[in-house]
Amino acid sequence: MQDLLIPKMTVIGTGLIGGSLALALKAAGAVGVVTGVGRGLANLQQAVELGVIDRFSQDAEAAVADADVVFLSTPVKTLPVMAARVLPHMKPGAILTDGGSVKEHIVAEIEPLVPAGVHFVPGHPIAGTERSGAVAAFASLYQDRRCILTPTERTDTKALELVRRMWQAAGSEVVTMDVTKHDRILAAISHLPHMVAYALVNAVASDDRYGEDILKYSAGGFRDFTRIASSDPSMWRDIALTNREALLDMIGGFESMLAELKQDIADGQDDSLFNFFLRSKERRDALL
Amino acid sequence: MQDLLIPKMTVIGTGLIGGSLALALKAAGAVGVVTGVGRGLANLQQAVELGVIDRFSQDAEAAVADADVVFLSTPVKTLPVMAARVLPHMKPGAILTDGGSVKEHIVAEIEPLVPAGVHFVPGHPIAGTERSGAVAAFASLYQDRRCILTPTERTDTKALELVRRMWQAAGSEVVTMDVTKHDRILAAISHLPHMVAYALVNAVASDDRYGEDILKYSAGGFRDFTRIASSDPSMWRDIALTNREALLDMIGGFESMLAELKQDIADGQDDSLFNFFLRSKERRDALL
Ligand SMILES: NC(=O)c1ccc[n+]([C@@H]2O[C@H](COP(=O)([O-])OP(=O)(O)OC[C@H]3O[C@@H](n4cnc5c(N)ncnc54)[C@H](OP(=O)(O)O)[C@@H]3O)[C@@H](O)[C@H]2O)c1
Ligand SMILES: NC(=O)c1ccc[n+]([C@@H]2O[C@H](COP(=O)([O-])OP(=O)(O)OC[C@H]3O[C@@H](n4cnc5c(N)ncnc54)[C@H](OP(=O)(O)O)[C@@H]3O)[C@@H](O)[C@H]2O)c1
Repeated sequence: MQDLLIPKMTVIGTGLIGGSLALALKAAGAVGVVTGVGRGLANLQQAVELGVIDRFSQDAEAAVADADVVFLSTPVKTLPVMAARVLPHMKPGAILTDGGSVKEHIVAEIEPLVPAGVHFVPGHPIAGTERSGAVAAFASLYQDRRCILTPTERTDTKALELVRRMWQAAGSEVVTMDVTKHDRILAAISHLPHMVAYALVNAVASDDRYGEDILKYSAGGFRDFTRIASSDPSMWRDIALTNREALLDMIGGFESMLAELKQDIADGQDDSLFNFFLRSKERRDALL
Repeated sequence: MQDLLIPKMTVIGTGLIGGSLALALKAAGAVGVVTGVGRGLANLQQAVELGVIDRFSQDAEAAVADADVVFLSTPVKTLPVMAARVLPHMKPGAILTDGGSVKEHIVAEIEPLVPAGVHFVPGHPIAGTERSGAVAAFASLYQDRRCILTPTERTDTKALELVRRMWQAAGSEVVTMDVTKHDRILAAISHLPHMVAYALVNAVASDDRYGEDILKYSAGGFRDFTRIASSDPSMWRDIALTNREALLDMIGGFESMLAELKQDIADGQDDSLFNFFLRSKERRDALL
């Protein structure tokens, strides 16, 4: 096991994010034994059957005792709860890291709990799908994606380096930034779009003036556009509540933009509408 | 040519919608000679090279003289303009039909112009992509999609029947409804989502507080979610302005839904947020 980046790893929350990391590190030969932790037995058994993890435990405290790296990947609000439970049982030199979609809240809650000799490195892979659980995990999820690490002044340099190498082994480009910037950028490019998608589906689906389900007329555009509204409700409740300030700010910005568009439509502003759509198309096309 | 559904067809606006219909009808052996009409020479030449049309003309009046069916597929606001130009030149018994995304406006403008002996059948295929022009056309666009026809009390039954068979030959399921219902349903499932996508990209892209383009951090979710914001600006300007009332009504409904969500986030309403997301997820998942 000498050459392994991480001889023993424990994944707490063996779902899409944690399971995919385990698979990616196994595929890269960067990890030895992976122990999965969770509440539901069926998901953990399936995770072993699918080769996502090597063994599992429903006792988080015991499962971290010999781990070199503990990866937290439960919904955001439960991350500090699980950290509080496992940190006192981790061995000296071990690293706790996470994949939570919000960073300021998590760092504020977890950092004060970290005992001397144990290291905490906050992280967030910018990758995912709308599906959940170990069955949704796949080895290439992080390939050619970005992973953001948000070290603080307390973060150990060597621990940060190991976590960086872990995500690189999983196929990602690693960037670092401070927690506040992370949370604002993610509010814009991910959290806001999810809120908009959820609200759009509810607005359209609640329009019951026709005596039939109008969604049956929807075509590919609507399906693609609303795919992210299939995401896990508890995960998004947690994200919305823990990144509240940045998210409310972005929703406000979006509301102003939509109000401007609405006014142009009401006023029949041909040129202004054309330019609004063109500006958006140009920005969107530049992503390709 | 006896057995052909449409011996001679003229497509005015040889782009995605008109070009794909020509290709689909050729593939089904339902059409004889197809003449394409447009303004730009390059697009028309390319359309012939790609086998989308058999010949082209930039003289719309002359190009409809011997057509059994004339299909209008230019942007919505230009449909009545082109109809006014070609209707006086169509032969007795010929059918004018269209693929415009808005129906009330078009029917109100075109129906009074239709001379005795010529028939007008308003239609709208619920299929499309964000791409434009003859190069974007493909034969299977209408396969297993719906096409809505919106006959009025003036619509000729036999002409309606032929247009129905035309879309069925192209692979679509044909449904009929009145123009007002069509425009309201499309405002909900298509026009509103496009407005939301355009506004979202503009809101996120105009957030320039970071000294870098934050869109570079966006992942697959954002790209899929905003794909429809790549759609043609002039097409969407026309749709927004000609379906103004229904669209403003739907934007209003969406704004209320988003305001409710925003309030729940601000108030930290865990359960209410969870239920909001769950309701949306259930409706979205039911589309699969
Ligand atoms: N999905 C994405 O697109 C994405 C992207 C980047 C980051 N993230 C972040 O990654 C984390 C996990 O997301 P995911 O998509 O992997 O979700 P997931 O597939 O639902 O996995 C979460 C796992 O955590 C376990 N879990 C849930 N609640 C728990 C609790 N209270 N205590 C202990 N375990 C619990 C679940 O199993 P049991 O219910 O059996 O315990 C499940 O296996 C979240 O913090 C999310 O913000 C997600
Ligand atoms: N795209 C969709 O998803 C979709 C779905 C259903 C219905 N529709 C409707 O179908 C129609 C066409 O849309 P499309 O997507 O096929 O657009 P498109 O690919 O841009 O094709 C439109 C065609 O019309 C021609 N044209 C544009 N302006 C014209 C004008 N003023 N006079 C004469 N010709 C003109 C264009 O060629 P030149 O510029 O060379 O003239 C082009 O070939 C629109 O009414 C739209 O509402 C679109």
